[in-house]
Amino acid sequence: MEKSDLIKALEWRYATKKMNGKQIPEEQLNNILEAIRLSPSSLGFTPYTIIVVKDQETKEKLLPHCYNQSQITTASTLVIFAAWTNFNIEQVDKYMQEIATTRNVSLESLQGFGDNIKQKFNSSSHEELLTWAAKQTYIALGFGLCAAAIEKIDSTPMEGFIPAGVDSVLGLEEMGLTTSCILALGYRDEENDFLSKAVKVRRKPEELFVTI
Amino acid sequence: MEKSDLIKALEWRYATKKMNGKQIPEEQLNNILEAIRLSPSSLGFTPYTIIVVKDQETKEKLLPHCYNQSQITTASTLVIFAAWTNFNIEQVDKYMQEIATTRNVSLESLQGFGDNIKQKFNSSSHEELLTWAAKQTYIALGFGLCAAAIEKIDSTPMEGFIPAGVDSVLGLEEMGLTTSCILALGYRDEENDFLSKAVKVRRKPEELFVTI
Repeated sequence: MEKSDLIKALEWRYATKKMNGKQIPEEQLNNILEAIRLSPSSLGFTPYTIIVVKDQETKEKLLPHCYNQSQITTASTLVIFAAWTNFNIEQVDKYMQEIATTRNVSLESLQGFGDNIKQKFNSSSHEELLTWAAKQTYIALGFGLCAAAIEKIDSTPMEGFIPAGVDSVLGLEEMGLTTSCILALGYRDEENDFLSKAVKVRRKPEELFVTI
Repeated sequence: MEKSDLIKALEWRYATKKMNGKQIPEEQLNNILEAIRLSPSSLGFTPYTIIVVKDQETKEKLLPHCYNQSQITTASTLVIFAAWTNFNIEQVDKYMQEIATTRNVSLESLQGFGDNIKQKFNSSSHEELLTWAAKQTYIALGFGLCAAAIEKIDSTPMEGFIPAGVDSVLGLEEMGLTTSCILALGYRDEENDFLSKAVKVRRKPEELFVTI
């Protein structure tokens, strides 16, 4: 099998634990953010907002809430996937308006679709909606990781943080948001990152896949 | 900004609602599955198994549990991301053994890491672990979607199914698995898919991103 460029890029990437502080060129960062923006989500609803942290002082403040993991302050950019914590009819109406405008269709033609989303909001517990929203951020995280690898930008997907702490530094609670996952972007510090030369560990195909 | 091949591919892709039944060449399917296999997960633990459904009869049986959405039976291949439902010490020990073998390091050097995972299992509720495992499948779903787009294979990410029904058709409960999300892969039926010519709707950058 001939490896695609994406496969080669994914073999090259690894969860970078120490970066060198170098900044990512704006054009490459924009390609990564655009891939994230193009990622799909359940019902196309995109129940999240993305905080792009370039400011070094903010990274320093986030550090203790991320168990002092050094990629936080040595990264060029932190992409914080913040899931929505409030769900209401107005958001659905706004989304229907966006579809109507973008596709030049009538609001009436979208009523069934909008009603489905409203029905979902009404029939789900708040906890269920929070989990639903959080899951969608992980698709976008996946897109960001693939796009970074293609750009030869190092990346670290992160769940190791205290959401309340990160939320507090970024003022997310007041924005109706909570941190779901983090993507650190930058360049590996090859000499000082113990993982930079480690062989990738992944489940073997015969253990991961069952074909029917 | 010059668009990367990935961005162009992501602009081309859309959630295909009707496919034409044509089969994906094995090499391209393997590239997509390999991208999924290379996707990272929390602690590298990969708490999921992936069911690759090529068998048409199985797709037909799944159809009613997927709200009769036509991409289920018109797809070439369904990739079912099945999250683990049991978490135990033996899995962690096996994973540590895999790392030790792959990286040629001692089990002792991994003890702290293994203890961290066991501690997570002990301190989390079963519900929390199920959610944690399910979230990891969404990263892999993201990788599969990106890889499919790069291969110019159409794809549909799906949450619209009844997990108990899908699990039952595939015998997942007995395997300690439950369906988390589904990726349908195939070729768009351009004439009969109402979405094939629709403009993509995504949140505008200025609404999705906040830069600090």
